[in-house]
Amino acid sequence: MAVKNIGIVVGSLRKGSYNKAIGQYLREQAPQGVSLEMVEIGGLSLYNQDYDENDEPAEYAPFRQKIKSFDGIIFITPEYNRSVPGVLKNAIDVGSRPYGSSVWDGKPAMVISSSISNQSGFGANHHLRQSLAYLNMPTLAQPEVYIANVQACFDEDGSLLKEDSGRFLTKALNAYIDFANRHV
Amino acid sequence: MAVKNIGIVVGSLRKGSYNKAIGQYLREQAPQGVSLEMVEIGGLSLYNQDYDENDEPAEYAPFRQKIKSFDGIIFITPEYNRSVPGVLKNAIDVGSRPYGSSVWDGKPAMVISSSISNQSGFGANHHLRQSLAYLNMPTLAQPEVYIANVQACFDEDGSLLKEDSGRFLTKALNAYIDFANRHV
Amino acid sequence: MAVKNIGIVVGSLRKGSYNKAIGQYLREQAPQGVSLEMVEIGGLSLYNQDYDENDEPAEYAPFRQKIKSFDGIIFITPEYNRSVPGVLKNAIDVGSRPYGSSVWDGKPAMVISSSISNQSGFGANHHLRQSLAYLNMPTLAQPEVYIANVQACFDEDGSLLKEDSGRFLTKALNAYIDFANRHV
Amino acid sequence: MAVKNIGIVVGSLRKGSYNKAIGQYLREQAPQGVSLEMVEIGGLSLYNQDYDENDEPAEYAPFRQKIKSFDGIIFITPEYNRSVPGVLKNAIDVGSRPYGSSVWDGKPAMVISSSISNQSGFGANHHLRQSLAYLNMPTLAQPEVYIANVQACFDEDGSLLKEDSGRFLTKALNAYIDFANRHV
Repeated sequence: MAVKNIGIVVGSLRKGSYNKAIGQYLREQAPQGVSLEMVEIGGLSLYNQDYDENDEPAEYAPFRQKIKSFDGIIFITPEYNRSVPGVLKNAIDVGSRPYGSSVWDGKPAMVISSSISNQSGFGANHHLRQSLAYLNMPTLAQPEVYIANVQACFDEDGSLLKEDSGRFLTKALNAYIDFANRHV
Repeated sequence: MAVKNIGIVVGSLRKGSYNKAIGQYLREQAPQGVSLEMVEIGGLSLYNQDYDENDEPAEYAPFRQKIKSFDGIIFITPEYNRSVPGVLKNAIDVGSRPYGSSVWDGKPAMVISSSISNQSGFGANHHLRQSLAYLNMPTLAQPEVYIANVQACFDEDGSLLKEDSGRFLTKALNAYIDFANRHV
Repeated sequence: MAVKNIGIVVGSLRKGSYNKAIGQYLREQAPQGVSLEMVEIGGLSLYNQDYDENDEPAEYAPFRQKIKSFDGIIFITPEYNRSVPGVLKNAIDVGSRPYGSSVWDGKPAMVISSSISNQSGFGANHHLRQSLAYLNMPTLAQPEVYIANVQACFDEDGSLLKEDSGRFLTKALNAYIDFANRHV
Repeated sequence: MAVKNIGIVVGSLRKGSYNKAIGQYLREQAPQGVSLEMVEIGGLSLYNQDYDENDEPAEYAPFRQKIKSFDGIIFITPEYNRSVPGVLKNAIDVGSRPYGSSVWDGKPAMVISSSISNQSGFGANHHLRQSLAYLNMPTLAQPEVYIANVQACFDEDGSLLKEDSGRFLTKALNAYIDFANRHV
């Protein structure tokens, strides 16, 4: 078996997000037979455990259904305050509940982090990995993907500026697909 | 100088939240001259960096003003998926922006984590500490406060069930106030 | 293909180590065709990068050769000061160098942590996972293995005291072997 | 009261260590009345809990005595495998035991990490901070000190190559001393 549909979840809502640009670039590099799709997370209400028993926000069910439909997930994220952005963590929390019904369960994952400085979102990258272990998402080890100075790699329209960043991302995508194929 | 007003930020929105119960208990233990106040974070829109330059959600300014008014902050949080709940991380992100105007800056902090199992929110506790270093919030080291099996310490109405948990929390509060007084 | 030889690396040198007891127990549960072997790390000199170019301690080469001979690695560790014991981290460092010659590379891993308290070595468990991502060791996500109050699960002679801990460890071992078989 | 004697603990044993160069540079910047001293950790035997009850390695007692004599500790470390070098973690473990007799207790700390790449030892920096919280060492939040591309800041003889790195380190040292003075 082989993965066919891969979801991309981006940790920034900014219109000109560099992380969206990375996601867009990866979509264009998808090998034959694999499709990558960006998932919207900006409309998800803040998770409240009371929702598990009562009226849930209407947007929760379609989001969970969408995640469930994928064979694997690529997370692409900036770092906010040395950790995962709240907006991304909220999406993870929403998908993980109610307890026992997590839609992330078993889906192979890749983590990409970036920053406009040297540090490349290291803190977000590894905090996210800690959650993914719990969520039972086998996660690609190498290549780790840290994109430093991302504003030199992509412009805000999403065009690739640096060829070797593009090559590295494509290589990482292929490594991930090989990894994911071992887990479906 | 001495701290007078301390904010309590709770990582769970659940009505019968045990973490709210801890916060409520601490409020009642506040020593003479110190007041503790719970801060509402459930109404904050998911942070989007575009807001920094355009129309911000109306609720951001009063939240930031409220945080700014405190001499210190106590975070009380469950663990979601081995990390800080999205709702709490979003509040931290909102308070930290726009870049250069963080309202958390310099405020001494304490971290309390809890769980209904053995592990006591360890993952949330330390992921949060990583953010607090960046946010320039001197954070109480010991006592670390991990509340295991919190449902045996407080009931959902917020009443203390276990005397020694109460004593430990009071002792930790006093250690925090002493610590905070060194940073104002 | 299937894994045949699995190394067990234990983070405690104590003679009556509970983590060694866990390792010993796992050895006895190894399914047909798989052998588990404990690796000695207490005799490794503290790593010094100067060794990469000069005379290395004599014990480094056989240790690296031994690790290289395995199809996968199980780490079993206590937590020292909220992180991986120095003795275990040193073994990891020795095996990872010289740069480009890591003997850990590509070997599927499992992490087991334990403590004599509630917290089960959570801090050691996840700090270790962060290293394993870098070392390109695909690591079992679930079941995460945290053994709380390990002194109630095994005695210091290594005998199992608690049947359901034994069953859980055996189940985790089998999940790991299935996981590892996907990566050889 | 004010800190007078500060210990510097370096996470690399390499003769031409850049982290030692940073330590040496800080020594020269020490303000009037404060002395900084480098502590040797390369001769400490790997910690074994059996030592707590039996014959300890002879070098443990003078190391612990030395650490005890300081008013505060500056840690300067590279990152090995996305975490704290084993040699540094071992020194921390040795100083922390036997249980209840930790010589680190209460001493204010600063963490400096560096790397010869972009990432500046982020993983080591924050894993170390997690240990310091447990060890009851109040730790300077800002400035966080990450030295990227350290080989461009100091040469292997320890001479400063980049003036603004020197100024930043001096500023951080002064911030640390101010912080430490609040905790003695």
